[in-house]
Amino acid sequence: MDRQRLIQQIKSKNSYLCVGLDTDHAKIPVHLQSRPDAIIAFNKAIIDATKDHCVSYKINTAFYEAMGLKGWAAMEETVHYIPDTHFKIADAKRGDIGNTSTQYAKAFFETLPFDAITVAPYMGSDSVRPFLEYADKWTIVLGLTSNTGAKDFELQKTGDEYLYEKVLRTVAGWGNPANLMFVVGATQASAFENIRRILPEHFFLVPGVGAQGGSLKDISEKAMNADCGLLVNASRAVIYASEKEDFAEEAGAIARQYQFEMGQYL
Amino acid sequence: MDRQRLIQQIKSKNSYLCVGLDTDHAKIPVHLQSRPDAIIAFNKAIIDATKDHCVSYKINTAFYEAMGLKGWAAMEETVHYIPDTHFKIADAKRGDIGNTSTQYAKAFFETLPFDAITVAPYMGSDSVRPFLEYADKWTIVLGLTSNTGAKDFELQKTGDEYLYEKVLRTVAGWGNPANLMFVVGATQASAFENIRRILPEHFFLVPGVGAQGGSLKDISEKAMNADCGLLVNASRAVIYASEKEDFAEEAGAIARQYQFEMGQYL
Repeated sequence: MDRQRLIQQIKSKNSYLCVGLDTDHAKIPVHLQSRPDAIIAFNKAIIDATKDHCVSYKINTAFYEAMGLKGWAAMEETVHYIPDTHFKIADAKRGDIGNTSTQYAKAFFETLPFDAITVAPYMGSDSVRPFLEYADKWTIVLGLTSNTGAKDFELQKTGDEYLYEKVLRTVAGWGNPANLMFVVGATQASAFENIRRILPEHFFLVPGVGAQGGSLKDISEKAMNADCGLLVNASRAVIYASEKEDFAEEAGAIARQYQFEMGQYL
Repeated sequence: MDRQRLIQQIKSKNSYLCVGLDTDHAKIPVHLQSRPDAIIAFNKAIIDATKDHCVSYKINTAFYEAMGLKGWAAMEETVHYIPDTHFKIADAKRGDIGNTSTQYAKAFFETLPFDAITVAPYMGSDSVRPFLEYADKWTIVLGLTSNTGAKDFELQKTGDEYLYEKVLRTVAGWGNPANLMFVVGATQASAFENIRRILPEHFFLVPGVGAQGGSLKDISEKAMNADCGLLVNASRAVIYASEKEDFAEEAGAIARQYQFEMGQYL
């Protein structure tokens, strides 16, 4: 999906919500757990109930890998089930030397039909560039993350700037605002104005709203640009809105609330 | 596998060789490519031919993910085929917020029987700690890697030290030399004495010998400690030693050469 189409989706839906499919067998409603197709049945119901309120889905690969082969199969079936109108993110945090990153890019952009993958920057340019070589695909590089561990390295000074600022500036030079986004955690609201100054045009993928406590209002006021420039992810707050038979309906209701609130900021 | 057993394996075999199973369908011998079980047939033949000369196998997950579901199945079958005497590394470069890293740990330490996983440090403590909670399992954190991109961030100064030095010192405090190793690329030989001073006791996983040009002699002279403290990985140089029907025999011969050379340094 190219940048123009993504922006068009956001404008037509009045939403920049990404729903995170961090699907954990132990957390889905009990009435589904005994089904052999529990994960995919849950995901399909969530997608059906939320697709009118979001523009993107983010599949957290860890939750599927934890289930082994049947988990990988459920991930494949899920990404194929997501409508073509929606921006499909593999939240995989990959990154390795060039010839290996080329294989990860193949895994998520060719073998699987994702539009984007999250990538860790530590290993530098040749670990990121193979992902950028695909037309109309996106590389979403970790900038400043939402977790407490962000202080250990991301918020350490390298010269006059924080490491995460160096990452944003350096990695931005390897791509452009039509093939590169950055992860900026919603819990880092105080840094958002600075980050938007560094990167006025790029989209940010913003996890950390909901279960992790970030404020949608804060982020939207501080970091939205003329093209929106934000994909705000909610995972647990949406998909586990209810643990009963009404789980999909409740997930849809939460997604609709986010969409309504986002409509105010757009 | 605990540290004592790993050291015992190294001493009994006179080898600290890790064979990297970066198995790429396009690079395996032509006579195998048309077989439906091409990848697993290749891996089994390589393991049979090399197991007397190495103490460890490293499965590069990217190459298996690139093949989709059948690739993940081949990875599962391969890790189960590796003898229990050998240290099994998932070279996966994972790392995410705590609840997600917990899922990755489950994927590779519970669902699959790996002894170790490689982890990227960028997101800090809570992205690494879930892996450290498993008894007799190992977390191998990226320190200074073998690729050209290492200069972009790893070799940037944070205060008085390089970022990679801060990573080594900081992460070392989260575990101990019996559950934590670091990746240090063989092409970084000039830094090895310094790294060994920072971490006198830890094991280093050293990729970059062979196709990437690192010198086994240099590394061994500069970084070996009383317990050996090294696992040196060769992937392409061993597994693609021949593209003909004698591929396994030739892989075994190269592995035996490494073992012989390692015997001189031990």
